[in-house]
Amino acid sequence: MFLPGVDEIVRRAIAEDVGTGDITTVSTVHVDAQARATMVAKSVGIAAGLPIVAEVYLQIDPRVTVEFEAVEGESISPGMVLCRLTGPARSVLTGERVALNFVQRLSGIATKTNSFVRLIAGTNARIVDTRKTTPGLRVLEKYAVRVGKGYNHRFGLYDAVLIKDNHIQAGGGITATVRAARMSAPHTMSITVECDTIAQVDEAVNAGADVILLDNMSLYDIREAVAKIHGRATVEVSGGVNEATVPDIAQTGVDIISVGALTHSAVALDIGLDLQLV
Amino acid sequence: MFLPGVDEIVRRAIAEDVGTGDITTVSTVHVDAQARATMVAKSVGIAAGLPIVAEVYLQIDPRVTVEFEAVEGESISPGMVLCRLTGPARSVLTGERVALNFVQRLSGIATKTNSFVRLIAGTNARIVDTRKTTPGLRVLEKYAVRVGKGYNHRFGLYDAVLIKDNHIQAGGGITATVRAARMSAPHTMSITVECDTIAQVDEAVNAGADVILLDNMSLYDIREAVAKIHGRATVEVSGGVNEATVPDIAQTGVDIISVGALTHSAVALDIGLDLQLV
Amino acid sequence: MFLPGVDEIVRRAIAEDVGTGDITTVSTVHVDAQARATMVAKSVGIAAGLPIVAEVYLQIDPRVTVEFEAVEGESISPGMVLCRLTGPARSVLTGERVALNFVQRLSGIATKTNSFVRLIAGTNARIVDTRKTTPGLRVLEKYAVRVGKGYNHRFGLYDAVLIKDNHIQAGGGITATVRAARMSAPHTMSITVECDTIAQVDEAVNAGADVILLDNMSLYDIREAVAKIHGRATVEVSGGVNEATVPDIAQTGVDIISVGALTHSAVALDIGLDLQLV
Amino acid sequence: MFLPGVDEIVRRAIAEDVGTGDITTVSTVHVDAQARATMVAKSVGIAAGLPIVAEVYLQIDPRVTVEFEAVEGESISPGMVLCRLTGPARSVLTGERVALNFVQRLSGIATKTNSFVRLIAGTNARIVDTRKTTPGLRVLEKYAVRVGKGYNHRFGLYDAVLIKDNHIQAGGGITATVRAARMSAPHTMSITVECDTIAQVDEAVNAGADVILLDNMSLYDIREAVAKIHGRATVEVSGGVNEATVPDIAQTGVDIISVGALTHSAVALDIGLDLQLV
Amino acid sequence: MFLPGVDEIVRRAIAEDVGTGDITTVSTVHVDAQARATMVAKSVGIAAGLPIVAEVYLQIDPRVTVEFEAVEGESISPGMVLCRLTGPARSVLTGERVALNFVQRLSGIATKTNSFVRLIAGTNARIVDTRKTTPGLRVLEKYAVRVGKGYNHRFGLYDAVLIKDNHIQAGGGITATVRAARMSAPHTMSITVECDTIAQVDEAVNAGADVILLDNMSLYDIREAVAKIHGRATVEVSGGVNEATVPDIAQTGVDIISVGALTHSAVALDIGLDLQLV
Amino acid sequence: MFLPGVDEIVRRAIAEDVGTGDITTVSTVHVDAQARATMVAKSVGIAAGLPIVAEVYLQIDPRVTVEFEAVEGESISPGMVLCRLTGPARSVLTGERVALNFVQRLSGIATKTNSFVRLIAGTNARIVDTRKTTPGLRVLEKYAVRVGKGYNHRFGLYDAVLIKDNHIQAGGGITATVRAARMSAPHTMSITVECDTIAQVDEAVNAGADVILLDNMSLYDIREAVAKIHGRATVEVSGGVNEATVPDIAQTGVDIISVGALTHSAVALDIGLDLQLV
Repeated sequence: MFLPGVDEIVRRAIAEDVGTGDITTVSTVHVDAQARATMVAKSVGIAAGLPIVAEVYLQIDPRVTVEFEAVEGESISPGMVLCRLTGPARSVLTGERVALNFVQRLSGIATKTNSFVRLIAGTNARIVDTRKTTPGLRVLEKYAVRVGKGYNHRFGLYDAVLIKDNHIQAGGGITATVRAARMSAPHTMSITVECDTIAQVDEAVNAGADVILLDNMSLYDIREAVAKIHGRATVEVSGGVNEATVPDIAQTGVDIISVGALTHSAVALDIGLDLQLV
Repeated sequence: MFLPGVDEIVRRAIAEDVGTGDITTVSTVHVDAQARATMVAKSVGIAAGLPIVAEVYLQIDPRVTVEFEAVEGESISPGMVLCRLTGPARSVLTGERVALNFVQRLSGIATKTNSFVRLIAGTNARIVDTRKTTPGLRVLEKYAVRVGKGYNHRFGLYDAVLIKDNHIQAGGGITATVRAARMSAPHTMSITVECDTIAQVDEAVNAGADVILLDNMSLYDIREAVAKIHGRATVEVSGGVNEATVPDIAQTGVDIISVGALTHSAVALDIGLDLQLV
Repeated sequence: MFLPGVDEIVRRAIAEDVGTGDITTVSTVHVDAQARATMVAKSVGIAAGLPIVAEVYLQIDPRVTVEFEAVEGESISPGMVLCRLTGPARSVLTGERVALNFVQRLSGIATKTNSFVRLIAGTNARIVDTRKTTPGLRVLEKYAVRVGKGYNHRFGLYDAVLIKDNHIQAGGGITATVRAARMSAPHTMSITVECDTIAQVDEAVNAGADVILLDNMSLYDIREAVAKIHGRATVEVSGGVNEATVPDIAQTGVDIISVGALTHSAVALDIGLDLQLV
Repeated sequence: MFLPGVDEIVRRAIAEDVGTGDITTVSTVHVDAQARATMVAKSVGIAAGLPIVAEVYLQIDPRVTVEFEAVEGESISPGMVLCRLTGPARSVLTGERVALNFVQRLSGIATKTNSFVRLIAGTNARIVDTRKTTPGLRVLEKYAVRVGKGYNHRFGLYDAVLIKDNHIQAGGGITATVRAARMSAPHTMSITVECDTIAQVDEAVNAGADVILLDNMSLYDIREAVAKIHGRATVEVSGGVNEATVPDIAQTGVDIISVGALTHSAVALDIGLDLQLV
Repeated sequence: MFLPGVDEIVRRAIAEDVGTGDITTVSTVHVDAQARATMVAKSVGIAAGLPIVAEVYLQIDPRVTVEFEAVEGESISPGMVLCRLTGPARSVLTGERVALNFVQRLSGIATKTNSFVRLIAGTNARIVDTRKTTPGLRVLEKYAVRVGKGYNHRFGLYDAVLIKDNHIQAGGGITATVRAARMSAPHTMSITVECDTIAQVDEAVNAGADVILLDNMSLYDIREAVAKIHGRATVEVSGGVNEATVPDIAQTGVDIISVGALTHSAVALDIGLDLQLV
Repeated sequence: MFLPGVDEIVRRAIAEDVGTGDITTVSTVHVDAQARATMVAKSVGIAAGLPIVAEVYLQIDPRVTVEFEAVEGESISPGMVLCRLTGPARSVLTGERVALNFVQRLSGIATKTNSFVRLIAGTNARIVDTRKTTPGLRVLEKYAVRVGKGYNHRFGLYDAVLIKDNHIQAGGGITATVRAARMSAPHTMSITVECDTIAQVDEAVNAGADVILLDNMSLYDIREAVAKIHGRATVEVSGGVNEATVPDIAQTGVDIISVGALTHSAVALDIGLDLQLV
């Protein structure tokens, strides 16, 4: 079990693409024809999702063997071979697009993540993802963030408390809201409070929040907040983070920088499959 | 039934995000609190996926009402209200991210599609999608392409014959391969042949292909191919298509321009949810 | 993967028959008893569905080995052995009925199909199936038609356009309806128009239909339609087709004869399982 | 809940037929067009499966209303209206084939069953079905047998003990095998023993079998068996039962006549849908 | 297939516990670390559910080998090794709780069952279970009852007729109700009538019930009922059965004693997993 | 959506009990018969699971109305009415056992939880559950703990870090292991370290653990640990906790007392359904 639930995700992807059958391949390729194929990078980036290639072919036809030449998380460049496939030509062809769709998207996310990570090298900050992932693929997209040397934020609404403005309004202010969450959530669960102002930061720290999330603050305010918090809580920044702004943000001494673009604005990395009949 | 299978896709997206429960909301918002929210555009683009907002809230809590102010496929700009939600505050909050993730991605695809479509206005060509879609979301992403005034290519390996170089090699040449496909595929199914050279175009047309797919050809070759084919088959172009090249390609008189980037390189459109307790 | 989705179909069939357990076998056959069984034809026909026997036993107990003696699509006659099973007696017994139910029904369809196919031998027409299949088994029943040397029509509402009288009425006549379909369907998708009169045939051909479906026409009218169409479209006949009428219909020069009876009126071929304890 | 599990069976049937969408209807029928349709018998038989029409349209579009004019189990004849549909034309069209496939097959089974039932009128025997049903549809096909005034045998391997020759061989003779089953099966479960000879009948009755199944016996032997058993067990006959032989078999005084042909050889009853746009 | 459907039950249990991943193990145990573990009894009882340990690890990681030292149904005592696991340390750790939860609950049921069984040793009565099982686990819990040397009652509402007071009231008295059930249920299905009084017992026996269920009767009444029935029907007792009362009940000569507590009041048997890295 | 996933759990429970149909009810109760039923407590405890009664009947037959008289979490005693059902008699009868199985088990857990909670009243400790839940029912069983005024521990392996002896051994000691977990787990995730000795407690606190879990320590050691930790971490106790020991443990000043018995040793609360035909 590479990642929980991935077999089901792959099953759906195959069903979606193959449907009632690969009519072209069945009608033009002999059932006994064999093929060798190489998955090859066509641009620069970080490889992610290679284990899914094995899962795709395990499901389509276990006679297809998959040998990896690249390592998950490794830097790749045009021409580099990621893996080699050998087996029945029909099966290799039928699985091609499904396998590539996974690897291209996940490598795109790992690549984007890694570019942020490299921009803050030397600081203590972490680049983390958000819940702005493609519906149905969160477990894989968050995996790709880790492959790109980023970190994961919470996985969903169920594994951490994150108090936003509406919760604060509904809960009667930061102090009351934090107390309510602490009173009812499992003791293992951390509490983050999203703050827009320094005054809110003060209140949230005093209320005992574990993480202070500075939302859309100026560099100046971020610095003041870091100084105020002074180690009494983890400091997270979100909003207005991009490749241009992230180095300065990281220099302020914040712990966590969460970036929706890692997943919501990642594009597929260019990767292809070269196939030869044997 | 808005689109077949969308209820299942939404069900999985909710399960993925909500898991065992929205711990923050349950612990800080009173069960009887009511809310009003507006989904608001924060950038310029094309709205797509609004019916999914209704499906998301139908599944989470049918007491939440959804009123649409924007129309699917309409141009939107910052500040424009897409829809209004009214109902139990807990439910409105719990569904927020799932609903936005769908609308942002689908609007991103419709927007990208529409920008290609506008670049070829006045020609007879169609912008069509490919199978380079996000695993598990194809039916929705292809829908978003249509919303953006693009067209769909085949939905998978099962609903049209598309003969590529490997099939030609395995099938013993273009003529033999087309004949084999015609002999075995349903008579309702069209046959496309991917061609790299003008010589192949000649052979494919003579073999009776319904569609000639010119793969990665120069403008010069595309023009020659169009002239050669002379209406005897539909002409499709793919490869090397981007916003810079697409106008000239469309001017050659081709019928179909297929663009993987519509889906594999679309990014989320910026859309938010403003919520007030009432 | 013999056919997409067949593992799930088999899983449901086993669950339906075995339920909470084969109480007779468990209580009367020793867990270590071994058995050999032969699946034997008891009537004349065409064998279809043999690969499902392997799938059934793979799911029930992979220790049961299945050796095929007959080939899918082959003519069989009473006494002929289709396959041999060897393995734990309990498992062989438990899977018997499920395996037979599949093979008997699919062989029944292949047999009926083949009898139609033989009746039109020497003509250019194809015998094709329809959507009148058993709910949930379409992919298998259409496979059995192919095994019987018939051809498949479209697989569902999603993979080809078939314009019937109601669509024509709703769409404002044949010409407008064909144009509307061509404008909105994928360019890979063929358009069939069902015609009841020669006048409709004329209009449909001129509107650019790919296939003209002559519905319930007399032989005289079919001949006239074939002459009129004169190769400008594929000609399909449906309605009133049975073993008595099909030879004359095929002689008219039509391309396609679609026969609902291949699936909706096929009956199980008589096939049994002889089992010996060893 | 008309019958347990039927919603899932219908869901799969719709998915199988509609796939990614009814392309013809969507491209040619206006979204606001309304239709009225009547489901009409085209041959003589017994109506079965009408509640499924309601389930099909509930799933496709709950705005389609279904009014029944015929009653489940009623005799129908050409021209008789079974039900009336009213609602959005697109939805009525999209569900037509799925609805008909169910009703035609189930009515075919009910009709065949009823013809057997009428042939034994005046005797005490019951016509019962077998496990020779279409994979995945057993709950519905056994329902159709009841609609046709037949009775159900066991539903699967799990709800009754049926000892056949292989179990007897494995269990060390009839007496030992019946004892073993009685010792281990739930006390609520009846035990049937399949007998080929009068000697076996004797032994099975003495062993305490609840039902004696006379397999492929001559009328002469059946009469002798009935006399021997003399009320000490229920008497069932199977094998060689058809419309010609069943009256004499029923006259022998047997209790149960099980007929595989009710399901494995039933053909679709001719039923159509007439649709008008309104 | 150990028991039908168990693979799905295990799949859900793993998904429920592992979710998006065992974060502790992945972050602290090296991917190549190997482990040996022993599952050890910590109290006295009957072992049940051991085959599920194999299924759990087959699904989590087939490289984990499971060797059994105890036999299903065997008496166990503190310190006794039930099975040994060897394989990747991460996988052994991840599956620990899921495997234990199954074995502890099922062993608890087998143990409770066996204690009832031993209390009636020497009588002809059977201890049987009821439908008071944990939702979703019935097939396993009824299996555990068998492992504990108890017997199964019906598995659900579908495999036997059990007429209770409400059915009698609705059906117009015992005689009419039994006749109605006999007229409509499959002939293979036994009929039980629940009786509160001796008068009802009389009527039920005369109506031809197969089983008379004496509900909450005194020992005195049970004895009278047994005498009255005198072998004409199976006699079952339920209600007020516990470890103190069951010996006397069994001595009355009843055939069946059904005990809801076997499942609804079973508690987990104490069993642990000792793990060493190697 | 009462609780995520509960509709699926209920669906499986109904399928498991009703199977192919409630043969007794269908054959003895008229389809038009109406019934009124009251769910009544037969022992003292805490009511939990009442919303599931509504879900059960919504799925079986939405015409059955459910009116609640008791409130979730309320103390109940023999004779008290929990809810009233009105509707078709067949449906009320068919759903009875499924509804009761849920309410009885969940009320049993809430009752057991509440008895622990009352035993520590006046202290600052929380009674929390564990992962020792019934496979497939965790979300419901943890809900029942909350209903009983207990608290939840983590929901699975995925939502908190809990470092046990094997992780410590594999990770190279407490300090290194905590650091590794902190380095790789999401920053929102708390880290618990299970300690057997005071020395380990020291090391774990210094390593920065959020929660110190004192496993199977004597009261004396617990007191020492609490004093040592002195507010620098949350203190949890587990092992050897029962109704006799829990008051003293709570008096030591620990924060959290986790009790497996809440779920693994809960028994069904006695609750019944009284039904009258109307």
